[in-house]
Amino acid sequence: MPSTSPGYAITIRAEAPSTFGATANLAAAVGAAGGALTALDVVESRPQHIVVDISCDAVDAAHGERISAAIEELDGVSVRKVSDRTFLLHLGGKLEVVPKVPLRHRDDLSRAYTPGVARVCLAIAENPADARRLTIKRNTVAVVTDGSAVLGLGNIGPAAALPVMEGKAALFKQFAGVDAWPVVLDTQDVDQIVEIVRCLAPGYGGVNLEDIAAPRCFEVERRLRAMLDIPVFHDDQHGTAIVVLAALTNALRVVGKQPADVKVVISGVGAAGHAIIQLLHRQGYTDIVGCDRHGAVRPDNPNLDEFRRWIADNTNPRRAQGTLAEMVAGADVFIGVSAPNLLTGDDIATMAPDAIVFALSNPDPEVDPFAAAQHAAIVATGRSDYPNQINNVLAFPGFFRGMLDAGAHEITDDCLLAAATAIADCVAADELNANYIVPSVFDPAVAPAVAAAVKTAAQAAAAQPRG
Amino acid sequence: MPSTSPGYAITIRAEAPSTFGATANLAAAVGAAGGALTALDVVESRPQHIVVDISCDAVDAAHGERISAAIEELDGVSVRKVSDRTFLLHLGGKLEVVPKVPLRHRDDLSRAYTPGVARVCLAIAENPADARRLTIKRNTVAVVTDGSAVLGLGNIGPAAALPVMEGKAALFKQFAGVDAWPVVLDTQDVDQIVEIVRCLAPGYGGVNLEDIAAPRCFEVERRLRAMLDIPVFHDDQHGTAIVVLAALTNALRVVGKQPADVKVVISGVGAAGHAIIQLLHRQGYTDIVGCDRHGAVRPDNPNLDEFRRWIADNTNPRRAQGTLAEMVAGADVFIGVSAPNLLTGDDIATMAPDAIVFALSNPDPEVDPFAAAQHAAIVATGRSDYPNQINNVLAFPGFFRGMLDAGAHEITDDCLLAAATAIADCVAADELNANYIVPSVFDPAVAPAVAAAVKTAAQAAAAQPRG
Repeated sequence: MPSTSPGYAITIRAEAPSTFGATANLAAAVGAAGGALTALDVVESRPQHIVVDISCDAVDAAHGERISAAIEELDGVSVRKVSDRTFLLHLGGKLEVVPKVPLRHRDDLSRAYTPGVARVCLAIAENPADARRLTIKRNTVAVVTDGSAVLGLGNIGPAAALPVMEGKAALFKQFAGVDAWPVVLDTQDVDQIVEIVRCLAPGYGGVNLEDIAAPRCFEVERRLRAMLDIPVFHDDQHGTAIVVLAALTNALRVVGKQPADVKVVISGVGAAGHAIIQLLHRQGYTDIVGCDRHGAVRPDNPNLDEFRRWIADNTNPRRAQGTLAEMVAGADVFIGVSAPNLLTGDDIATMAPDAIVFALSNPDPEVDPFAAAQHAAIVATGRSDYPNQINNVLAFPGFFRGMLDAGAHEITDDCLLAAATAIADCVAADELNANYIVPSVFDPAVAPAVAAAVKTAAQAAAAQPRG
Repeated sequence: MPSTSPGYAITIRAEAPSTFGATANLAAAVGAAGGALTALDVVESRPQHIVVDISCDAVDAAHGERISAAIEELDGVSVRKVSDRTFLLHLGGKLEVVPKVPLRHRDDLSRAYTPGVARVCLAIAENPADARRLTIKRNTVAVVTDGSAVLGLGNIGPAAALPVMEGKAALFKQFAGVDAWPVVLDTQDVDQIVEIVRCLAPGYGGVNLEDIAAPRCFEVERRLRAMLDIPVFHDDQHGTAIVVLAALTNALRVVGKQPADVKVVISGVGAAGHAIIQLLHRQGYTDIVGCDRHGAVRPDNPNLDEFRRWIADNTNPRRAQGTLAEMVAGADVFIGVSAPNLLTGDDIATMAPDAIVFALSNPDPEVDPFAAAQHAAIVATGRSDYPNQINNVLAFPGFFRGMLDAGAHEITDDCLLAAATAIADCVAADELNANYIVPSVFDPAVAPAVAAAVKTAAQAAAAQPRG
């Protein structure tokens, strides 16, 4: 049975007889139904009955209903109400916009608004660079999506994507003090997305593209980078690539291999796969094979778009041909950013000794992590309930913190590499082992370390003459 | 000499001899130079010298420099640094984006972000109306400008407009708990503005257009109202019209006249003037004459755009012809939303008995308020240093609070009229007099009163079949 998750936490309010064993019976019923009890609070106590809030994690929504039904079946017990704690958390949205300046009386108003604000406006009109000093542009990031590739849910549109973008913005603030704002766009046209973000840019110090489907995301990003003077980052590409490179750096340290010596197979050449391949290539990994559903990407594949063309021309040095399973045989590293259950434990058994498996399809990985761990030295997933969670939260808050602190105008590969190194180095030598290749997402040292490294790299890039 | 303003507040840090009379001499120098001393703090005291922070309000930037020079000229005194308190307040921007949900540990993350958030997304995908319940759309307003008509500064562009939009957003939160976000657009093309706001709309519960030049603002607003299912409000039009109507309602109460009986002359038929004329017309004012720089607007004027055509067709019932000064003769009410110093006290003397003068050009009114007060019963301006300040802050926060609370899809004239009545009624009968026709912008009763009235009007409108 799949495991319970706080993402499916419910609170069941039940009325039960006022007996000594009542709460124990409720707890036992939750356990027998497969729920994970997290709290049990008596909210009302009467001579004949008590009212109890039973909080537990379920596997999914249907499981929550089964737990509730099991409680209802107890003798003398009735369920008054079932609250979904995830929905309760989202009620009314997850962000607010708060003034940083006092507005208590007339003098405050005269400085923050008219007439005082007019002088600040004029200063910026005369010297546009002052906008970074005198406005929110100093610290703002637009979290932009067209709702076309949201989590694993696909093309659900802008309104349904908003809870994710709000969550992302909340993480930006929580982990790195960045003021991020959701920009959910009711268009999936490349020209329109590019033009809208261009027009919005004066209000932001950076752009985080999010959950935009490939290959549209590549073109949107490339065009925006060319036209804007603020950093443009597609988290599904670069955030993922940074954390994968960080994890792989530490994984190679554990097994004692070098980037230039390992054979890497990547399943998935969409947004994430493309960016991972580019960053590994830049870091000195020479033997990379990208696979799509037809198998290894090669220059003689028909109908290559320009992005797969780049992969075909810059990877697969042995011009290998075949299915994903065939490519995996003899490989040192497998990285999956594709779809569930493409490989079996037997496939992993064909890999080179001390194999490294990153099965990042979420929530269901490319290969069962337990089966993979029978044969591989290191297994990582995108999930929090296994060791080695590859989670973009390790990268994006600190990355933009560093960009904003540097007043950076563009993102260079060196900035991405610096972020990956900083994350890898947050795992101390005496902590590093096969089940701990990336730091915890709640490690407070990560975001500042990433920010400092990225700021230095961005400033170094700005100091160099443009090629 | 014009008066000092907290908008031009400076703090001068000076070193002075450590004598008994040193601080008194500094204070005297500020006064002699025409500054208004607000604070004097000794920040360092040594045997031979003291360091003092001298805070004062100046008339303008040049005056601040003269005050500083006067202090520098005192015997043994040297100025170390002059800080502009308005600029200090704006450093780093005036807003931040703050999570409303806890993100302390894994369970929080699982509910606010992945995997829990996926269920919330799916709920909205299945029932888009749930976005108002489960996202920030419940409480957000986009403060949209193209930077084309910012304050009295004109077409200064989006970056320079940002401090005003931030201030507006801060006021939305402070006065009515609305989460407003600045959207400063690097385009002044009507089609583009309309299309961008349409694409951004899924993330917002309302749109506040701001400082967009006429006649572009009319078309932007009309097209957005037709296509969006959230309220679209142009504050320079409707916010101004609401507060003007509120003030005029109370002014007529003071002088004992009725809307249907008074002759109203309006100088300025741009964004504000157009909206004021429409709202007064809707409220039962029958004798209105709009004037532009050529004088009274009449159907036989050449080259009328469609907006002036509406004014020509719906006002000036006597088909009066002539200059603004000629129109003012015999009028009961003058409302100026145009340009400084168009009229003299002698012009006001030609008005009907118990004349009402709203000279709202800011900072310099259409007629000197003191000169006008010699002849008019009631004088109002846009300034805080005279009685009866007509300030949009009285309207927009509560207006959108009511719209959001009603879940309103559109703004009707009844909503605007309800807001005006609510503001007027915030002045109690025993407070009402010629120098107190509108409540203070800091009266905490105003925004809730406006919100309640607007919510009721919006719900009534929604309950009616569409005509």
